[in-house]
Amino acid sequence: MLLRIDHVGIACRSLDAAIERYVSVFGLTVVAQETNAEQGVREAMLATESGDSYVQLLEPLGPDTTVGKFIERRGEGMHHVGYAVADVTAALAEIGGAGVRLIDSQPRHGSMGASIAFLHPGDLGGVLTELVQPLRQP
Amino acid sequence: MLLRIDHVGIACRSLDAAIERYVSVFGLTVVAQETNAEQGVREAMLATESGDSYVQLLEPLGPDTTVGKFIERRGEGMHHVGYAVADVTAALAEIGGAGVRLIDSQPRHGSMGASIAFLHPGDLGGVLTELVQPLRQP
Repeated sequence: MLLRIDHVGIACRSLDAAIERYVSVFGLTVVAQETNAEQGVREAMLATESGDSYVQLLEPLGPDTTVGKFIERRGEGMHHVGYAVADVTAALAEIGGAGVRLIDSQPRHGSMGASIAFLHPGDLGGVLTELVQPLRQP
Repeated sequence: MLLRIDHVGIACRSLDAAIERYVSVFGLTVVAQETNAEQGVREAMLATESGDSYVQLLEPLGPDTTVGKFIERRGEGMHHVGYAVADVTAALAEIGGAGVRLIDSQPRHGSMGASIAFLHPGDLGGVLTELVQPLRQP
């Protein structure tokens, strides 16, 4: 069901500073940058050389957002992991059937036109887990 | 320099329970399981369908290990991210030159025969980061 690791989501206080760091240290390429008001973040996707796995940098739009509260509680760092799937709706049905609580019972809009859904970390060993159906499979 | 995300390392209290969860919910395949006394963990690598990105589950060998202290402080959850590189020694030289502190200045033995090295989270926005030169490139 999980095709590969699509991305790691990293919470940062300053998106610009984090981008500068990841580009200068690792030579990653910024392939998308957008504000997602629904999720309360300004974010960037930085591609590895494979072109199908990414570092996602997330700056909270304010202290009362999910990512803002995360940073307040735990500091900057890894926020979630996203796995690529072929069909996010089918995957949600299967995973929900296995007893994992779904944060999103229906897919919603993610980065770069993907359909995404989050799964509850309480049922997955403390790991906030995202399913990603990319707009185009590589 | 970073070819792709090789794995996410997830700290868990019980390796057996975590394996059971990831296999039954996501259909992942256990491809390796070993005790790494140097790192103080019992661990398993679970492959995604791509065959080149993994979930690494880490159970501490005791409370005084790195992963044991992590769980004590933050609970179960994502512990680090590993990126595949073609040449870990060359990557370390380049990254160290960019001003990132190296936890390992020389590569050491990782899962499945890989050469690995860790980078300091304090210089990478709170993210414990691992470089992985797989035994064989896929």
